[in-house]
Amino acid sequence: MRFHTRKWIKPQDLNPNGTLFGGRLLEWIDEEAALYAIIQLENPKTVTKFMSEIDFKSSAKQGDIIEIGLEVTKFGTASLTLKCEVRNKMTRETIISIEKIVMVSLNEQGKVKPHGKTEIEYVKDRLK
Amino acid sequence: MRFHTRKWIKPQDLNPNGTLFGGRLLEWIDEEAALYAIIQLENPKTVTKFMSEIDFKSSAKQGDIIEIGLEVTKFGTASLTLKCEVRNKMTRETIISIEKIVMVSLNEQGKVKPHGKTEIEYVKDRLK
Amino acid sequence: MRFHTRKWIKPQDLNPNGTLFGGRLLEWIDEEAALYAIIQLENPKTVTKFMSEIDFKSSAKQGDIIEIGLEVTKFGTASLTLKCEVRNKMTRETIISIEKIVMVSLNEQGKVKPHGKTEIEYVKDRLK
Amino acid sequence: MRFHTRKWIKPQDLNPNGTLFGGRLLEWIDEEAALYAIIQLENPKTVTKFMSEIDFKSSAKQGDIIEIGLEVTKFGTASLTLKCEVRNKMTRETIISIEKIVMVSLNEQGKVKPHGKTEIEYVKDRLK
Amino acid sequence: MRFHTRKWIKPQDLNPNGTLFGGRLLEWIDEEAALYAIIQLENPKTVTKFMSEIDFKSSAKQGDIIEIGLEVTKFGTASLTLKCEVRNKMTRETIISIEKIVMVSLNEQGKVKPHGKTEIEYVKDRLK
Amino acid sequence: MRFHTRKWIKPQDLNPNGTLFGGRLLEWIDEEAALYAIIQLENPKTVTKFMSEIDFKSSAKQGDIIEIGLEVTKFGTASLTLKCEVRNKMTRETIISIEKIVMVSLNEQGKVKPHGKTEIEYVKDRLK
Repeated sequence: MRFHTRKWIKPQDLNPNGTLFGGRLLEWIDEEAALYAIIQLENPKTVTKFMSEIDFKSSAKQGDIIEIGLEVTKFGTASLTLKCEVRNKMTRETIISIEKIVMVSLNEQGKVKPHGKTEIEYVKDRLK
Repeated sequence: MRFHTRKWIKPQDLNPNGTLFGGRLLEWIDEEAALYAIIQLENPKTVTKFMSEIDFKSSAKQGDIIEIGLEVTKFGTASLTLKCEVRNKMTRETIISIEKIVMVSLNEQGKVKPHGKTEIEYVKDRLK
Repeated sequence: MRFHTRKWIKPQDLNPNGTLFGGRLLEWIDEEAALYAIIQLENPKTVTKFMSEIDFKSSAKQGDIIEIGLEVTKFGTASLTLKCEVRNKMTRETIISIEKIVMVSLNEQGKVKPHGKTEIEYVKDRLK
Repeated sequence: MRFHTRKWIKPQDLNPNGTLFGGRLLEWIDEEAALYAIIQLENPKTVTKFMSEIDFKSSAKQGDIIEIGLEVTKFGTASLTLKCEVRNKMTRETIISIEKIVMVSLNEQGKVKPHGKTEIEYVKDRLK
Repeated sequence: MRFHTRKWIKPQDLNPNGTLFGGRLLEWIDEEAALYAIIQLENPKTVTKFMSEIDFKSSAKQGDIIEIGLEVTKFGTASLTLKCEVRNKMTRETIISIEKIVMVSLNEQGKVKPHGKTEIEYVKDRLK
Repeated sequence: MRFHTRKWIKPQDLNPNGTLFGGRLLEWIDEEAALYAIIQLENPKTVTKFMSEIDFKSSAKQGDIIEIGLEVTKFGTASLTLKCEVRNKMTRETIISIEKIVMVSLNEQGKVKPHGKTEIEYVKDRLK
């Protein structure tokens, strides 16, 4: 699993109890999954279709730095299935993990559209 | 199921494809579940512990009004289990539904704390 | 008066003195009045035209849950007049009350447009 | 009346109809009144107590620049009464005007506290 | 140099160390420079092209009021060069100063476009 | 240079001309530099002290994905100097580059504090 995007927990990311607001974390994960899938499928109209169960294992507090990791587990005809883990950057403790996030590729009319991809590609190879 | 909080989809709630950003929706659901549980358990230190799988059935667009419904399905010793549905206010079409959201009551030290509740209460009755 | 939307006071909603920022509260009320009027008048182009005087009776602090209530007081030809009260969900103490909020129905060109409504309707009846 | 703070209408400030969201405008006015009063009364614990009726005369659209003007109309023992006008910077057309905004000076315990001021002062004179 | 826009430091503007988040300050400066240039050049398609080095001289804390000052130092054919200083409103201590911010006027296609201006103009004179 | 954090340009990140708001980009860079420095120096009280000149080479539009790269160029006694580049993830076109961002390590009293680091470290090695 590769960890890219990092977030710094600021006051505006806290719930009233002073720990990381779970809703903010879900927002960050959804954004990260969307942009990861868009890059892989080379289609900006890629949307979240399904998330498997979410277990909030630990929390984070103001000033903590977290990082969001994603890994492809399956290429479907029009979908891409990801596995996600969010962890504390300094201690590597897991905050949340999601076994399955299914992203779907759509056409201009919003209908499911095959993406033709079968393996992970790196932008640097595409640009060669 | 009772539907309380309503949201009006504004430009800042959209993803770049112009439909409701899934991450924003998850943020709203998490907030609604938290405040619902806090009211029932009368404990502000109530946090999200678990969400069962999430199926994004339909989307919403700028200007749509959505409403978030919650229903208690189980009172545990220190937990409260909720069922959630988000629907379009005007058409009643379902946008998302989550079978199980488990909220947990904590004490000041962040440890699990029994809440002593076994049924839904209404604030108007408590204040009598 | 029926109370729908609830808000959980988070750090980002506070003024620098640590109480609920009045500007945020006015923002929430305006949104709630707009969506209430849009639902009743079945016209998304419904805008705020007038608010009568606003008395800030009490404040709220981080972690409080408030609820926003609205009630129709008059159906005009192209307008809808609402009465608003915001109160603390747990104590039912009034935070703010506004005697008159006038919402106006517009057509595509932004001109006043009669809405043809004379009484409150419920979406569940419309969909029968 | 002196016009200080200016705002540039961005996508995040619009309602779903594409014009300036009234709630955002009220938020900006409340912030401007608060900081104006804090500067005059030299007390950071100054809060909004009352706003007289608000007439939304015209709207603004994405890309417009607006400016917020304030003028003291009365010094009370513990209060400061302001008059407010918001206008389009380029055309000087009035967007909103509020005859009376009453700000109140509080002490550390949140009780009303006389401020001892009777006229407008400029920071540059205080620092001499 | 004239100081217009004022900001009140709220919890959402802080970094996790509890002082003004530098990124928020840069955001405010960029917005102020943009709207100042748009007013002077009478062209809404005016963008930031260059900023000279930025020295963070002092910080600000929650509840502080800051003001942003700008001054034109040069009119180019299609550009406007500004000097910027941000200071604490109450103490006049400098927080940040930027010697050179270059704003450029564009046409509808996003190409550089001469603006024909050679000196500062006031809106009140244009509207005579 | 290593590129970590990625951002997806959403409506709320645009200026009124529909391109990426420069202020938002500066906010993202400042946050990324701060968290990079905090991780390296193992001191959460690390602040931005200086940025060298900033040239806005190209812009980005809604739906684009950008990535922020940082590289250490110098370890000072109490400072860390970084070089930054932001580029479009899909085309690798440079959006902005900053030659020098100086971050400074502070102690609890906000005074400069030597950090004792002389080379880049990886968290995975520290945790061994």
